[in-house]
Amino acid sequence: MKTVFALTALTLAAATTPALAKGVVVNQAITETEVLGAQQGWCKALVDIAATGAKSGQPAAKALAEKVIDAAYGYQMGAVLFKPTLTVNPQTFRTTRAGALAYFVGGDPTFPKDTGFALKGWTKCEVDNSAIFIAGDSATTLGKVHFTGKDGKVTSVDKTWKFVKDDAGKLRIVVHHSSLEYSDK
Amino acid sequence: MKTVFALTALTLAAATTPALAKGVVVNQAITETEVLGAQQGWCKALVDIAATGAKSGQPAAKALAEKVIDAAYGYQMGAVLFKPTLTVNPQTFRTTRAGALAYFVGGDPTFPKDTGFALKGWTKCEVDNSAIFIAGDSATTLGKVHFTGKDGKVTSVDKTWKFVKDDAGKLRIVVHHSSLEYSDK
Amino acid sequence: MKTVFALTALTLAAATTPALAKGVVVNQAITETEVLGAQQGWCKALVDIAATGAKSGQPAAKALAEKVIDAAYGYQMGAVLFKPTLTVNPQTFRTTRAGALAYFVGGDPTFPKDTGFALKGWTKCEVDNSAIFIAGDSATTLGKVHFTGKDGKVTSVDKTWKFVKDDAGKLRIVVHHSSLEYSDK
Amino acid sequence: MKTVFALTALTLAAATTPALAKGVVVNQAITETEVLGAQQGWCKALVDIAATGAKSGQPAAKALAEKVIDAAYGYQMGAVLFKPTLTVNPQTFRTTRAGALAYFVGGDPTFPKDTGFALKGWTKCEVDNSAIFIAGDSATTLGKVHFTGKDGKVTSVDKTWKFVKDDAGKLRIVVHHSSLEYSDK
Repeated sequence: MKTVFALTALTLAAATTPALAKGVVVNQAITETEVLGAQQGWCKALVDIAATGAKSGQPAAKALAEKVIDAAYGYQMGAVLFKPTLTVNPQTFRTTRAGALAYFVGGDPTFPKDTGFALKGWTKCEVDNSAIFIAGDSATTLGKVHFTGKDGKVTSVDKTWKFVKDDAGKLRIVVHHSSLEYSDK
Repeated sequence: MKTVFALTALTLAAATTPALAKGVVVNQAITETEVLGAQQGWCKALVDIAATGAKSGQPAAKALAEKVIDAAYGYQMGAVLFKPTLTVNPQTFRTTRAGALAYFVGGDPTFPKDTGFALKGWTKCEVDNSAIFIAGDSATTLGKVHFTGKDGKVTSVDKTWKFVKDDAGKLRIVVHHSSLEYSDK
Repeated sequence: MKTVFALTALTLAAATTPALAKGVVVNQAITETEVLGAQQGWCKALVDIAATGAKSGQPAAKALAEKVIDAAYGYQMGAVLFKPTLTVNPQTFRTTRAGALAYFVGGDPTFPKDTGFALKGWTKCEVDNSAIFIAGDSATTLGKVHFTGKDGKVTSVDKTWKFVKDDAGKLRIVVHHSSLEYSDK
Repeated sequence: MKTVFALTALTLAAATTPALAKGVVVNQAITETEVLGAQQGWCKALVDIAATGAKSGQPAAKALAEKVIDAAYGYQMGAVLFKPTLTVNPQTFRTTRAGALAYFVGGDPTFPKDTGFALKGWTKCEVDNSAIFIAGDSATTLGKVHFTGKDGKVTSVDKTWKFVKDDAGKLRIVVHHSSLEYSDK
C-alpha cells in the first residue's frame, strides 16, 4: 500500500498517484464477531453435550466434553480461572482441566459433589451481553446466559468470560466466572 | 548491557570481557506484587469507606468512594465489566461509574435498590486467591474475599478481578465479577 | 445484543426472536486505518516542520517539533527505541526526547553532529508499506519511506515503526528504526 | 496466598495470621532474562550456522538454518517484519520464511543477490543493547550487534528485535530490522 502526504499544492497530484501493490497485512486483533462466535460455540457445545448424554449416556457426553474443553478453554496455558455456577467449597474453583470436566459431566470421585451441569437436559442456551470489552490481547464479556431445560424452565446466570487468541488464531476461554442471580427477596 | 556468544575456544575470553554500561531497561510487565498490592488497596478502600460512613455520614463516604473509583477502576477507558455481589435485575451490571458509585454508597434514586455495600460496617477485608494469571497486558485473579462485619460475622464471596496497567503505570480494575457462594443445601 | 443457539427444531424460532437492545461494546483494538493514519501524520508533521523552518526559522521549527514529538512518540512511557536514519556513534540511538528533538531540528550542543533532519527542505513524504502486523497491544509496520527534497531528489529509507495505543486511544510510536538503503555497488 | 487489610487496631493480628496455602500463579510476562537469552540464542545460532557451513557445506548449513528459523522466528504467525542488513531492492524485505532462509544461507535462485550472510565465517557475535522495552505482550530491543569474522575484523550493525511469547512460552522474533552503521564521512 502507499500513503501519501504532500504540501497543499501537491495534494491533488498525490491523490491521483496510482496505488502501489498492497503489502502484507496480518491483523490478529480480536473482533466482536469472533467474540460472539466463541460465545455461541460455548452455548452450542453445552446443548450438544446435553443431547449426547441423553441419547448415548455419560461416557459419550464425557468424551465430547473433553473435546470441547480442549478446544475452547486455555487449560494448556497453565490454568483457567473458572468459577462454575454450582460448585461448593472446598472445590469452588476449577483451575484444572479435570475440575472443569467433572463439573460439566460428573462421574469423578475426586469431585464428589459434581453431578454434571451439562447433563441437566438443556435444550437452549442464549447469551445476552451487557458489555463487551476488546483491548490489547484479550476480549472480555459480561452478561446474562439463559439456559432452557427440558421442561421449558429457564435458568439465568451472570457470566463473565475472558478470551485470548491462541497461536492458531482461535479464541480460548481463560477466565470464566458464572453465578446464579442474587435475589433480595 | 552486553551479552556474548563465542565458539567454545573463545568462551573464557568472552566471559571476562568487562561489562559495558547497562542500557536503558523499561519493564512495564505486571508483577505478582503489583497485583497483590492492588487487591489490598481495594480491601483497604472498602474498609476506609465503611469507617468514613460510620463516622462522618454518607456524603463523606460518597466523596471518598468517588476518589476510590476514579483511582482504582478503569471507567475512563469506556466501561468496566462490573457485576457486584448484591445487585438485582434490571440493574445487575454496573458498566458506568454512576452505577458503581451507587452500589458502594447508595443514595442515588436512579438505582433505587442500592443501599450501599460499603456502608455495611465492614471492619476487615481479606483476599484469598485461588489463582492469579498474568499474561500479555493484563492480570486476572480468582478467589475468595472475606468481609468481616461489625458483629464479627464473616461474609465470603467468589471474586474475579482483571487488572490492566494504565499509562501512569498504575493497575486499574477493568473487570470485577463478585457473587455470593452457591449453597447446595 | 443477544446471540442464540438452539437445537435444530428450534432454530427458526430463535432466529425470529426480536433482538434485544445491544449492550455496550468497547473495542480498542488497533485498526489498519489507524496505523495508516498515524504514518501519514508522521509524514505530514515532517513536511510541516520543514516548511516552518524554511519560513520562520529554526526556533519555530523546534517549537513545532516539540509538539509533534510529545503527541506522536511515547517518550513519556519511559523511552522510545529510536534509531534515526543519519545518526552516528556514540549517539546513534535516541532513547530520550532530547535526543529525538536534536535529531529533527538540531541546535543542541549536547548532540553536536545533528544538523536537523527535518530542516532539509522536504516537500513530500510517502510511505510504501511492505508489511503491517497488528496483534495484541501493538501494530508494527515495515517498508520504504520516500522523502522528496526541494530540488525534487528523492531519498528512500527502510523504516520500522511500532505503535501502541495510549489511554486516550491515540497511537504512539514506541519503536522507530530508520536506515538508508544498503547498496551492493 | 492470603492478603489482609484491617483497621489499625487489627493490623498486628492480621500480620500474624498464618499464611494460607498459596494459590496457583501463572505468570507469562516476558522477563529481561528471557529477552537476553533469546538474543544470545540468535547469536549462537548464527555462529553455529557459519561453523556448520565451513565444516560441512551449504546444504548442512541450510538444514540447520531452517531449524533455527522455525524455532526462533514467527513466520508461522503470518509474516515476520524482517529487514536484513545487506538486502537490496526489490527484495529488501523478507516477510516470508523462504526470504529469510535465502538471506542466511543463499542458494535460492528466486533471491539471486543472496550469498548467505550466515556463511561469511563469523566466529563471534555480541549484543550490546542500547534499550530494552518490555510491555504488554512483547519485548523490543535496540542496540548494536558486533560480528567478528575469521580474520578478526568486526562488523557492527544497528539492530531492532521485537519478541513475543508463543503458546509454548518461547520467545519468537516477529520484527527484525538490521542496518549498517551510517557514516558521515
